[in-house]
Amino acid sequence: MSAENISELLHFLKDVYQNQMPFDRLLGIRIEKLTTDNAIVRIDMREDLIGNFIKNILHGGVISSVLDLTGGLIASANVLLQMSSRGASQDEMAKGLAGIGTIDLRVDYLRAGQGEFFRASGHILRAGKKVAVVRTELHNDRDLLIAAGTGTYLAVHS
Amino acid sequence: MSAENISELLHFLKDVYQNQMPFDRLLGIRIEKLTTDNAIVRIDMREDLIGNFIKNILHGGVISSVLDLTGGLIASANVLLQMSSRGASQDEMAKGLAGIGTIDLRVDYLRAGQGEFFRASGHILRAGKKVAVVRTELHNDRDLLIAAGTGTYLAVHS
Amino acid sequence: MSAENISELLHFLKDVYQNQMPFDRLLGIRIEKLTTDNAIVRIDMREDLIGNFIKNILHGGVISSVLDLTGGLIASANVLLQMSSRGASQDEMAKGLAGIGTIDLRVDYLRAGQGEFFRASGHILRAGKKVAVVRTELHNDRDLLIAAGTGTYLAVHS
Amino acid sequence: MSAENISELLHFLKDVYQNQMPFDRLLGIRIEKLTTDNAIVRIDMREDLIGNFIKNILHGGVISSVLDLTGGLIASANVLLQMSSRGASQDEMAKGLAGIGTIDLRVDYLRAGQGEFFRASGHILRAGKKVAVVRTELHNDRDLLIAAGTGTYLAVHS
Repeated sequence: MSAENISELLHFLKDVYQNQMPFDRLLGIRIEKLTTDNAIVRIDMREDLIGNFIKNILHGGVISSVLDLTGGLIASANVLLQMSSRGASQDEMAKGLAGIGTIDLRVDYLRAGQGEFFRASGHILRAGKKVAVVRTELHNDRDLLIAAGTGTYLAVHS
Repeated sequence: MSAENISELLHFLKDVYQNQMPFDRLLGIRIEKLTTDNAIVRIDMREDLIGNFIKNILHGGVISSVLDLTGGLIASANVLLQMSSRGASQDEMAKGLAGIGTIDLRVDYLRAGQGEFFRASGHILRAGKKVAVVRTELHNDRDLLIAAGTGTYLAVHS
Repeated sequence: MSAENISELLHFLKDVYQNQMPFDRLLGIRIEKLTTDNAIVRIDMREDLIGNFIKNILHGGVISSVLDLTGGLIASANVLLQMSSRGASQDEMAKGLAGIGTIDLRVDYLRAGQGEFFRASGHILRAGKKVAVVRTELHNDRDLLIAAGTGTYLAVHS
Repeated sequence: MSAENISELLHFLKDVYQNQMPFDRLLGIRIEKLTTDNAIVRIDMREDLIGNFIKNILHGGVISSVLDLTGGLIASANVLLQMSSRGASQDEMAKGLAGIGTIDLRVDYLRAGQGEFFRASGHILRAGKKVAVVRTELHNDRDLLIAAGTGTYLAVHS
């Protein structure tokens, strides 16, 4: 598997998450960066993403959605990396990606979600052949930590 | 605090969650039932709530959003119950409700979110004066368990 | 796989957890019941299991230990049930059991752990071929709910 | 509140966790470092802390116990810091410490707990007047990450 092929697959992954998942489009997320070990996902504040109309803050559900999909992206990119290092074909890798799904997610809401935009990022804690664990974080436009997540993802591949 | 007043406050609570939180409106949730110890929240499948466009299933973020808000509703109703039993005024209760917020949430995704509609419900595990813990569940239209949640809510009241 | 063989394997499983895991022996747990879909694990209060010597309550670590092992027992019994229904041999089942391990655990501490003895039990939320999710509960000698857990277990079998 | 007084309180805190909690003594933990924003807790492998006697690894319950108590230490030290900066008396601070308790804990088991000793450490994610959230980690003697935790602690103080 050449570096061009990985780059192609990351491009494909980005397209799937950003443009082909209807709810991700509804949220309006943008993937600013995606490598084999990191992702940065941006979401802009918008009136219909508000939870509390008095305090004007992001709904907790939007926060957990963004942390979940950011963790899924990072788990997926890691599966690509592992499979490519074992010489998997592009077909096998596409199949590996299709099997990825969230098993469970914990979200800690740390500060009120105030800001004009937010960025989620994360890193892999466990990169197994069956299960991946990813810690994620959401910061606002002043770089304050708004929420933290830990997700376990099914990532069976060979 | 009379029973009418509690019923009025539950009505107010329902209106806030269903009609005044912009993201809840975007999701299109409907509160089918709300008492001082239970809530049933319905969400109908819609194209833009889909996560995986091939498998046609509810996005994990929609699931965590609905479980979070259902837990919040149940925690809030419980705060009303506790405050009213101590003779709190309607003003004090409104203030008590305003202070409720999700501290953390765990969601277990158990089955693919297939169905035309889904119902979330839950029950209180801990009903303290500072913190409430609520277990929630989401079933689909064939009554299959799709996801389970446990949320901790800040619920400081006197 | 006959019923006798399952009963034999459950007996084996009980022996492993109760007598062969050194830390379980240190805690002094006793498995009062073990079927293919449930387990009841008892632990008696003892001075060196106390966390807070003023309040005389069970240490949180003892609670999470008991909930974790109870979930593991239930996940293991379920793997036996699934494998036996597919006609697995006793050897294959022993191998299946050896692969089981806790992926992650959430524990909610609901009440101070006061009592002369405690009982943990649980039920399966997800019984997949790769992953099992188990909800558990710990009650004290007056049947008050002390803590609740949700564990995800690796349970890969064929 | 002078620096000596804080140092005295940290010393007291260390003594309580290390010497006065019976289960902590049973585990044999040693607090190697304790400041107002960090703690390092060491535990040595011992035969009766083993979970799996074939693989010779630390029991999951030992791991969750150590992560829980490390998070509690860090939350407690942080309460001291906050209270002292507001000029609280030593009596008020002792009272503040007594009210601290684990609300919930998530533990991710990342690698088999092999090693002759282990070290837990952590950092505060949320340092509120009602609730503290602490992320913790356990490394083995080769500095491999064995487990990660996130705990929510009740920490009501004024």
